[in-house]
Amino acid sequence: MKQSQMLIPTLKEDPADAEIQSHKLLTRAGYIRQIAAGIYSFLPIGQRVLRKVEAIVREEMEKVGAHEMMMPALEPSELWKETGRWTTFGSELMRLHDRNDREFALGATHEEVITSLVRHEVKSYKQLPLTVFQIQNKFRDEARPRFGLLRGREFLMKDAYSFNESYESLDETYQKMFDAYSNIFRRLGLNFRAVIADSGAMGGKDTHEFMVLSEVGEDVIAYSDTSRYAANIEMAPVVATYEKTAEEPRAMEKIETPGQKTMQQVADYLGHGLEQGLKAILFQVDEEFVLVVTRGDHEVNDVKLKNLFDADIVELASEEDTKRLLGAGFGSLGPVAVGEEVRVVADHAVNALVNVSCGANEEGYHYTNVTPGQDFEVEEYADLRFIKEGDPSPDGEGTIKFARGIEVGHVFKLGEFYSERMNATFLNDQGKANTMIMGSYGIGVSRTLAAIVEQYHDERGITWPANVAPYQVHLLSMNPKKEDQKELADQLYDTLLEAGIEVLYDDRKERAGVKFADSDLFGIPVRVTVGKRASEGIVEVKERTTGEQNELSHDEIVGYVKNWYSA
Amino acid sequence: MKQSQMLIPTLKEDPADAEIQSHKLLTRAGYIRQIAAGIYSFLPIGQRVLRKVEAIVREEMEKVGAHEMMMPALEPSELWKETGRWTTFGSELMRLHDRNDREFALGATHEEVITSLVRHEVKSYKQLPLTVFQIQNKFRDEARPRFGLLRGREFLMKDAYSFNESYESLDETYQKMFDAYSNIFRRLGLNFRAVIADSGAMGGKDTHEFMVLSEVGEDVIAYSDTSRYAANIEMAPVVATYEKTAEEPRAMEKIETPGQKTMQQVADYLGHGLEQGLKAILFQVDEEFVLVVTRGDHEVNDVKLKNLFDADIVELASEEDTKRLLGAGFGSLGPVAVGEEVRVVADHAVNALVNVSCGANEEGYHYTNVTPGQDFEVEEYADLRFIKEGDPSPDGEGTIKFARGIEVGHVFKLGEFYSERMNATFLNDQGKANTMIMGSYGIGVSRTLAAIVEQYHDERGITWPANVAPYQVHLLSMNPKKEDQKELADQLYDTLLEAGIEVLYDDRKERAGVKFADSDLFGIPVRVTVGKRASEGIVEVKERTTGEQNELSHDEIVGYVKNWYSA
Repeated sequence: MKQSQMLIPTLKEDPADAEIQSHKLLTRAGYIRQIAAGIYSFLPIGQRVLRKVEAIVREEMEKVGAHEMMMPALEPSELWKETGRWTTFGSELMRLHDRNDREFALGATHEEVITSLVRHEVKSYKQLPLTVFQIQNKFRDEARPRFGLLRGREFLMKDAYSFNESYESLDETYQKMFDAYSNIFRRLGLNFRAVIADSGAMGGKDTHEFMVLSEVGEDVIAYSDTSRYAANIEMAPVVATYEKTAEEPRAMEKIETPGQKTMQQVADYLGHGLEQGLKAILFQVDEEFVLVVTRGDHEVNDVKLKNLFDADIVELASEEDTKRLLGAGFGSLGPVAVGEEVRVVADHAVNALVNVSCGANEEGYHYTNVTPGQDFEVEEYADLRFIKEGDPSPDGEGTIKFARGIEVGHVFKLGEFYSERMNATFLNDQGKANTMIMGSYGIGVSRTLAAIVEQYHDERGITWPANVAPYQVHLLSMNPKKEDQKELADQLYDTLLEAGIEVLYDDRKERAGVKFADSDLFGIPVRVTVGKRASEGIVEVKERTTGEQNELSHDEIVGYVKNWYSA
Repeated sequence: MKQSQMLIPTLKEDPADAEIQSHKLLTRAGYIRQIAAGIYSFLPIGQRVLRKVEAIVREEMEKVGAHEMMMPALEPSELWKETGRWTTFGSELMRLHDRNDREFALGATHEEVITSLVRHEVKSYKQLPLTVFQIQNKFRDEARPRFGLLRGREFLMKDAYSFNESYESLDETYQKMFDAYSNIFRRLGLNFRAVIADSGAMGGKDTHEFMVLSEVGEDVIAYSDTSRYAANIEMAPVVATYEKTAEEPRAMEKIETPGQKTMQQVADYLGHGLEQGLKAILFQVDEEFVLVVTRGDHEVNDVKLKNLFDADIVELASEEDTKRLLGAGFGSLGPVAVGEEVRVVADHAVNALVNVSCGANEEGYHYTNVTPGQDFEVEEYADLRFIKEGDPSPDGEGTIKFARGIEVGHVFKLGEFYSERMNATFLNDQGKANTMIMGSYGIGVSRTLAAIVEQYHDERGITWPANVAPYQVHLLSMNPKKEDQKELADQLYDTLLEAGIEVLYDDRKERAGVKFADSDLFGIPVRVTVGKRASEGIVEVKERTTGEQNELSHDEIVGYVKNWYSA
């Protein structure tokens, strides 16, 4: 394509509101333009990349037997009311009325629509399992749209839905989709992890998020440095490997600790490490009050606490309740001599401690030489803390490291959540009506594009991986006013096109400096420059990523490019 | 693809609300399902056809240098207010508020968004001409959605926009797009006409609608039986070829015509043909009253009347005004002795008449032996009537016939309508700011799919043209319980796939009758049936459209299919 005829407006300055590289570079290089907060147009080269990502997603979906279809963006509110999500989805769901005042949701996701379709059209186990997918714009009214394509309000998504006759069958479909997702993100050149995630309110069993590792990610992942293990930090179990010291328990002492509030202050004051203190926090777990005790250097994981009590709601007790129940406020709490109204649980690590310190439930005082079992009782020891960097990996291989991640995909065992509420049943091989077992599987296509840029850029611009670059070759004529340069460049352009190579041809009458800067910004992997040696038939070839450059004869170019892309 | 694993729900009965074949057949054959009035899901085989139509559209757009991009469906109301269309588009435009109460239009069309983008990004004549397109779902809240995909509320559309520096340049772009559209509809196998259309309120100069000829079309086209001339009937000029008879004008007579109201009644009563009477109708044209006189067998074309007076509004005068100004009501009007308040114009055909009849502007009376020039004066003769079947074609070739058409495409010279209101200017080669000259070009992609079915079906189902069939081959195993049939069919399926042929494989355990009926309904061009002669390696091949069938050896099938599709 000739650049002079294309809408690729490049900018010298970063957009004022852009905080991250993908937002800055995609805007500056003319891939996207913002229309309103969180709403973007994809300009022609942006659209090309989007379609390449789409094509890879589509291919891998088809390989695992998912069939493409297309549901509308206008979703009747009646369907959302059947599952209760008309209310629970909240203000992220965009809504509108038609001219007859009928209410619609603007497609944020399509579980309701597909379940409504399948319940009408699928009657027998013979028609199962069934997996369908679509690629279309989705709408979510984010409270704070930001980070360009990473958190938008209208975005391109691939969503897939599976219907199975049993949980075993769902497991198979889930595994296929999991593998397809791994292939997709691998083919896109991404450094990612499939992360064990929280199934949240959906009540599903398994769920994995596919996270692209990136400092700008909004989620923290705990992963093994040697295996493929990875989990959202709140989901990673801690392997209990605490050994009790041989130290003899001493007699507990009460010590004045005036003005020492934080764990660190107290530890410093008492002259020991953080791990020699006990942290005690009072929670309200549904209707009960629970004092949770951990080692001073550990953090309470409220998801684990919630799971331990199978609770609906877990929150910090108020300072008022804390004073009433324990006699002191935050910063002075401890497990010694706690009344009957408060249950005491502790993390496994606490069980291995001897002669440590803790709050005395009295402002300005702490105990030292406290030993569990001797000085206080614990109702139950459990895994109640967040995993830490350096902990052994839960799968037994390697140690845990932390990284930030951008969620680009999500696979989810929905189970019967939707099918039960919407009465999607089938007749099994005994002629009995059973509820369908569902899964859902999403990929943020436009978000993935941004995630690629987060991993593939340098100080001069984008450095696309080969599979998704908008063009394969960026052809530059350094000075199109010189006849020999223009002629050779024109000829090379035709030759490359004839060879089936995707070329962007910078035929503009711009200074060489502008052209090179734009070229680096665009990030097309191979650049071919027709310059001073045009009359000899010699052109320069440069790799965008490595910066490696060579002079080649013009008739070697097609071979070079084909070879480069097949390598 | 194996049919047993796909969502292709066929129906025996037509949907209750389906009035036309495309709606009936696409629903019954499992291509589409309605979600709400005018809102459809495309099931997997429907989506395949849609993508094939899309691919052809995309190819032809790219050939003429249009670049694909993607604008959002959420369009800020501010942009629509700039052009005034926030008001004038009316209730077809779907609207919504975001969580901050900001108003958006749901993309019905994208002139405002693209103009807003281009005015920011394009500064110089060097960047023009520029043509972009996108393929995406559009939203229009039709008052009466009906006819399935023909008049929906959410539908797939290709829209393109061009920006030029001059009207001459626009003419070139327009012609390229016109040719691309012709190629697209030709490749889709459609019998269509490019029809001169009314540019309506847009003030544009040229506009053509691409109409697929079909009895169910909502528009009437006048076309030449021997040339490519076609126009919306209100747009077709009438070539004046009326010859005056040699008859001598006689003296006008006033005749009682009690109870004779219509032209036909009067003609019968007076014993002459319709063409021997004058029709006179009083119009209000802006602020003036105009009596329009045509031959009795002709119809007044109000678009032509409007153009003659360069008027904004043309409507029938009220019966009250008519009585006040002419002394009689509808059915008794004529051009004789009309007062000064009323202007009299007539169609060219009237000028050739001698000794005809007309209303006497008095209830129950007509004049006979009326001759223009002698008995009444005409201010201006002009082309004021609708063209009729049998009239000479305006291009001088052949005679006019009428047909009904489905509008599938529209090319439009917008001129400065949007760019002026939105201040989209560029610097010309003199450094002077000029307003951009725009064009817009639409294709209803999902509507086109329905139009294809209207032209390609028979009493048993759809008969897809080769280019857009969801699959190339429908492979049926007549009785998959018989080992030899199943084995040969499985093997053929693999062989066809390996040869790169798109196959739908009916591997279901259904009766042969059901499979054949479904196959006819789907309309895949070539059917291969593995039946009784499987053990001999013999299969049956049948063409869907002609019904022609042959027995072939299984190893001839790939060659047969490749040959069939390259023919």
